[in-house]
Amino acid sequence: MTILLAITGWDLAPWEAEARAALTNRTIAVHGRDAYDPAAIEYALLWKQPHGALAGLPNLKAALCLGAGVDHVLADPLLPAVPIARTVDPDLTMRMTEWVVLQVLSHHRRQRLYLDQQARRVWASPPQEAASAVRVGLLGLGELGRDAAEVLARLGFRVAGWARTARTVAGVEVFHGVEGLAPFLARTDILVTLLPLTAETRGILNYRLFSGLARDGVLGPPILVNAGRGGLQIEADILAALDDGTLGAATLDVFETEPLPAASPLWGHPKVTITPHVAADSGPREIMALVVRQIARLERGLPPEHLVDPKRGY
Amino acid sequence: MTILLAITGWDLAPWEAEARAALTNRTIAVHGRDAYDPAAIEYALLWKQPHGALAGLPNLKAALCLGAGVDHVLADPLLPAVPIARTVDPDLTMRMTEWVVLQVLSHHRRQRLYLDQQARRVWASPPQEAASAVRVGLLGLGELGRDAAEVLARLGFRVAGWARTARTVAGVEVFHGVEGLAPFLARTDILVTLLPLTAETRGILNYRLFSGLARDGVLGPPILVNAGRGGLQIEADILAALDDGTLGAATLDVFETEPLPAASPLWGHPKVTITPHVAADSGPREIMALVVRQIARLERGLPPEHLVDPKRGY
Ligand SMILES: NC(=O)c1ccc[n+]([C@@H]2O[C@H](COP(=O)([O-])OP(=O)(O)OC[C@H]3O[C@@H](n4cnc5c(N)ncnc54)[C@H](OP(=O)(O)O)[C@@H]3O)[C@@H](O)[C@H]2O)c1
Ligand SMILES: NC(=O)c1ccc[n+]([C@@H]2O[C@H](COP(=O)([O-])OP(=O)(O)OC[C@H]3O[C@@H](n4cnc5c(N)ncnc54)[C@H](OP(=O)(O)O)[C@@H]3O)[C@@H](O)[C@H]2O)c1
Repeated sequence: MTILLAITGWDLAPWEAEARAALTNRTIAVHGRDAYDPAAIEYALLWKQPHGALAGLPNLKAALCLGAGVDHVLADPLLPAVPIARTVDPDLTMRMTEWVVLQVLSHHRRQRLYLDQQARRVWASPPQEAASAVRVGLLGLGELGRDAAEVLARLGFRVAGWARTARTVAGVEVFHGVEGLAPFLARTDILVTLLPLTAETRGILNYRLFSGLARDGVLGPPILVNAGRGGLQIEADILAALDDGTLGAATLDVFETEPLPAASPLWGHPKVTITPHVAADSGPREIMALVVRQIARLERGLPPEHLVDPKRGY
Repeated sequence: MTILLAITGWDLAPWEAEARAALTNRTIAVHGRDAYDPAAIEYALLWKQPHGALAGLPNLKAALCLGAGVDHVLADPLLPAVPIARTVDPDLTMRMTEWVVLQVLSHHRRQRLYLDQQARRVWASPPQEAASAVRVGLLGLGELGRDAAEVLARLGFRVAGWARTARTVAGVEVFHGVEGLAPFLARTDILVTLLPLTAETRGILNYRLFSGLARDGVLGPPILVNAGRGGLQIEADILAALDDGTLGAATLDVFETEPLPAASPLWGHPKVTITPHVAADSGPREIMALVVRQIARLERGLPPEHLVDPKRGY
């Protein structure tokens, strides 16, 4: 009746505290700190677990990833063949939508230009197009992409999305699959990336992809916004595309290496806006409430919600 | 059958061109430039008309203000007693909602802190509360305030508004009248002003009002956002309130004097964000379409839409 916490990269204390508060009838063991009987572990709660943390647990029933992305979980070569579920949480989704809407509006309304003008005490206004003249494209139309798309459409932007499989989303033009990518890019002025990191998506944000974006946008060259994962992007290509005008600007929340090294030219690039992987953190309390529901489902013999397909990679 | 254009402060050319294109069966005369028979003028299209421009026009049927705010129109001591209508335009409303949502999210998500950290190559994230922990208050719940409120509520903020008269707005807690102001302020962390400038509202954004805002907000001291009119605010009080911590930050699109004089301490204040009265410009084309509909109504003997009450001041 023990639950294993295998967390790195996050401050353990609030997660342990909320796990103890939410799962009172369970023993909580922290990987790498507590001694525990491997045979006692029934569930594992994970964020960037050390590889092998889930190996040799004969009674493990399921692994629950405490974040939305499972690339780190699936990268473990010693992952056992138990159901793996990820976090889908309305609080997390709302936060990502805030971040996406903020970054898209900042570009559309030229917020950095106005800050720059303010610093120089300049009172001037370039022409401002309506949102209906701007085509936003969401690379990834899952839990997060769909919610952001809805608010962007409400604000008047022309919104399209790209997914792996065909789907319909009200108010959003949907493209899918490898053959859907080129037409999706060709109509996109602001590209917002909310893809998971998988074998198929790694490095997808490269110079070739940027070259396929719309060249006739009212904001000038197309704009990249990435809050998916740093592994999706080739940073040298982003810099090259910004410098030769293939991209007009980039806002990045995720990076090939995190924290972004102080020597990265992204920090000081005038066309780059950086946030330090904060687009959508959710609270341990909100996420533990989901964990409690997931364990209750599993105990009733049901599969957990938001099951991950390890072959698909998300 | 002549329409008078009396415009200052805006570039005349696009307005004249769109007026000619939209009102082909009418003669267009420009005040201060063209010679015209005062008795021929039936309608006047206005933006900051020179005082007296509408005096001595015996056959004037109505005056249509090309902007949303009519404070400049009504300030004319020689205004004739004809119906005066203002501009309510979905394009203009969308633009204001963009601006308000952008500014509220910028504060909520600490966009300027992150830009500042980026300049110093600092990777750090302060705790981030959910939108549901932040109380936005809209001073003015008219055409513009209501639309912004709807999107802010969709984003999860706790939204309230203050109007002159009682009303219900879905998802928004409504306060009204002089006695409703104090309780409205006391629950407000981010104050967004979308009031018209009238005898009652002039100077309303003063130190006393700021002192009445919530002191227990998760973002720290309360934040002022003003896109109404510069005459609503006492800029010396804003500076004093920022400096003694009564306000935490201010984002201003409008100013006592516009363009904002280069010597204004607002420009360089680290807690002030300035945009140069650009929150919601609408295009001459969109607005001329409304003018055509208004003239058609008037010609059928109907009152124009969006009538202004000169006594009320808006
Ligand atoms: N920066 C942050 O703070 C932060 C926070 C949370 C999450 N994230 C990232 O956001 C990602 C998305 O989260 P989510 O909850 O929206 O995931 P999700 O619900 O699994 O959605 C993923 C979307 O990507 C599409 N997709 C996956 N592989 C694809 C491929 N090869 N080609 C085309 N489309 C593909 C999926 O297509 P189908 O719809 O056809 O399956 C789906 O639309 C997470 O994986 C995580 O990396 C970042
Ligand atoms: N910065 C820009 O680019 C820009 C662009 C467009 C407009 N504006 C400004 O925005 C203002 C608002 O536009 P709108 O179309 O939303 O106007 P509106 O529809 O007339 O709404 C005005 C709102 O203010 C309230 N109000 C007026 N006097 C009040 C008082 N004494 N006490 C309490 N509430 C009062 C009204 O209350 P009731 O609902 O009870 O009548 C109404 O809710 C315009 O007047 C203009 O100055 C600025």
